Amino acid sequence: MEQLSVNQIFRGLETGKPLIHQITNNVTINDCANATLAIGASPVMATSIEEVEAMAGLADALVINFGTITADMYESMVLAGKAANRKGIPVVFDPVGVGATPYRTQKAMDYMKKVKVDIVRGNGTEVYALIGGQANTRGVDAGELSLTHTELAKLAAEKLNAVIVISGKHDAISDGTRVAEIENGDIWLTAVTGTGCMTTSLIASCAGVSEDYFSAAVVGMGVMSLAGERARRKISDGEGIGTFKVKLMDEIFTMNETVWEREVILR
Amino acid sequence: MEQLSVNQIFRGLETGKPLIHQITNNVTINDCANATLAIGASPVMATSIEEVEAMAGLADALVINFGTITADMYESMVLAGKAANRKGIPVVFDPVGVGATPYRTQKAMDYMKKVKVDIVRGNGTEVYALIGGQANTRGVDAGELSLTHTELAKLAAEKLNAVIVISGKHDAISDGTRVAEIENGDIWLTAVTGTGCMTTSLIASCAGVSEDYFSAAVVGMGVMSLAGERARRKISDGEGIGTFKVKLMDEIFTMNETVWEREVILR
Amino acid sequence: MEQLSVNQIFRGLETGKPLIHQITNNVTINDCANATLAIGASPVMATSIEEVEAMAGLADALVINFGTITADMYESMVLAGKAANRKGIPVVFDPVGVGATPYRTQKAMDYMKKVKVDIVRGNGTEVYALIGGQANTRGVDAGELSLTHTELAKLAAEKLNAVIVISGKHDAISDGTRVAEIENGDIWLTAVTGTGCMTTSLIASCAGVSEDYFSAAVVGMGVMSLAGERARRKISDGEGIGTFKVKLMDEIFTMNETVWEREVILR
Repeated sequence: MEQLSVNQIFRGLETGKPLIHQITNNVTINDCANATLAIGASPVMATSIEEVEAMAGLADALVINFGTITADMYESMVLAGKAANRKGIPVVFDPVGVGATPYRTQKAMDYMKKVKVDIVRGNGTEVYALIGGQANTRGVDAGELSLTHTELAKLAAEKLNAVIVISGKHDAISDGTRVAEIENGDIWLTAVTGTGCMTTSLIASCAGVSEDYFSAAVVGMGVMSLAGERARRKISDGEGIGTFKVKLMDEIFTMNETVWEREVILR
Repeated sequence: MEQLSVNQIFRGLETGKPLIHQITNNVTINDCANATLAIGASPVMATSIEEVEAMAGLADALVINFGTITADMYESMVLAGKAANRKGIPVVFDPVGVGATPYRTQKAMDYMKKVKVDIVRGNGTEVYALIGGQANTRGVDAGELSLTHTELAKLAAEKLNAVIVISGKHDAISDGTRVAEIENGDIWLTAVTGTGCMTTSLIASCAGVSEDYFSAAVVGMGVMSLAGERARRKISDGEGIGTFKVKLMDEIFTMNETVWEREVILR
Repeated sequence: MEQLSVNQIFRGLETGKPLIHQITNNVTINDCANATLAIGASPVMATSIEEVEAMAGLADALVINFGTITADMYESMVLAGKAANRKGIPVVFDPVGVGATPYRTQKAMDYMKKVKVDIVRGNGTEVYALIGGQANTRGVDAGELSLTHTELAKLAAEKLNAVIVISGKHDAISDGTRVAEIENGDIWLTAVTGTGCMTTSLIASCAGVSEDYFSAAVVGMGVMSLAGERARRKISDGEGIGTFKVKLMDEIFTMNETVWEREVILR
């Protein structure tokens, strides 16, 4: 694989403390803010239509997360997205639940037309729905499609002209040309709400300090999958997702370039 | 006591991973989602008026929680509730704070008229207010009434034609005919916000896999009270509600039928 | 320093369990509710315009937190604030992010005109913006001003006719006449989202049982800074902000007057 800017990103986070503006859902908003702090960036979660443009204008990256999308929040997301585009900061989109209801799918497609999205992170079904595929509404994973995650990431990257990250057993990242797979992770990452949303915040934090969005996506995704794996190893008998979530945050916080380079399994 | 479908519920959760649609408050929404995952169900927290009907149409149970009720949220709750009624999935209602302000009490009573509620879970005051009783607004527990929790549960079940669960030192569950009391629990469950809301999510998860709503209520309530008791036993000197909340989630996650049958004290 | 009513406040919390009505942001609302419980008070987080007046009428203190301020929430804050003023309970204001966008700054200044605020808690920049200062929007700390935090607290207290608390490396509290500095704390308190918001909830809890708002501010601020310091001491190698946040809540929960008097370093 081509050289990734791992070193530059970790150093950028250490020295730059990028400001990550996030318009996100009410379920995982606290975890997203803490994940952003844990990786060394600074979160701001303003959503009011009166100030999102001004706030995006101060930020180094913008996260748009559809988890609990409402009509009001959608308007704020469009304004903030356009402000981000004007300023030239990355817009990172998490199409939570897209494909599950027509409302979400339509709003997501509209959003991609109105705002230039630089990075999309979702699961297989969500990304598939975003490029017009029909998935089972209960959340069929892309594994049941005729495409692998990696093929889907590449196809979606071409269609949407963005870096695509598909989280899953193996994570797939593509910008349409380059492709990476991350083999780290742990099944318990699916047993805690918000690990996907947090990953999106981590990727945006990385993209806030690097114009190489493909590398930012690989580094941010790698941090989460590796942190999940490392947290799980520290779980004792009788412990469950309560302890796992605490240790996951610890692992993101203590992650550094050396650990990342040594333990992330890239293909 | 008549045979409870404990075995069928635990097996249903394991194999069915029911989808629990929850329109709930902003305070405990993350904990409710994680409690739902911990017991083996799948949470979706969509609240937007544009999609709640579609989402309820995909779900196996619906939770309506009044914690931070607003006029908009109320409208979504009515639409989702009617969709749930049409589909025949259980509606589980948590009348948080009902009795404290006239707004809440009136909205709760309206809600029970517009939507067929299958299970109600609250504390003594909330349930008492729901059947038209006047309680001290600062939250007098039903212990100060002339009724025991068990008598109140039975009376409310008859009046509201629903399974009633009253959480407290001892929990009382009734469908108007059958009555159960659970003697497990721990006082620290009242020192963490959201344990009531989480219990409602657990009960809905159980009702999502069993048409025997009385059993679902007993099993879900029992999981929380027993998990609280078990978590408290693992607390060391110098630890408090931070650690307790983590261990509570662990205990819900690791709970199984064997532990439940052995340690839940039912009367 | 003049006598502080530390003893009276701790005893008041133990016996009075004051009800703290909080209209706050969606990011840290759960942590604020749990911090309130941990110090021995009772939280209620109602925000709906239809009931905030009634709820404030039941409360012993009101928290107004601007973290995710919207136009609707602002209206509720004004209604609740006026109801609190009429009832004579303390209004504790957290001007989160004021100075960052013109919208926030203007709304905060408007708020101080419409409602009598008794205590303000913020960082240096926020308090500076509140008295009309121009700070760097990315959040310059008041250390870069020509004023110390203590001088700024005193000046703001005079200008705003309120007790002012400025959280920082050393915390500064003033009512315009009296001045206190707290030298406890830990840098990790800035690495977890919501520690400022939680401090505001703690201060309001103390003010809910004491008319000596200066003492309430010192006690509440001291609880957080000392809890942070004590939590950090219990962190092992490989642990990070996940574990720290859990232990922070434990320390607030287990804090008592003896520990406070022995370990809080006041000047």
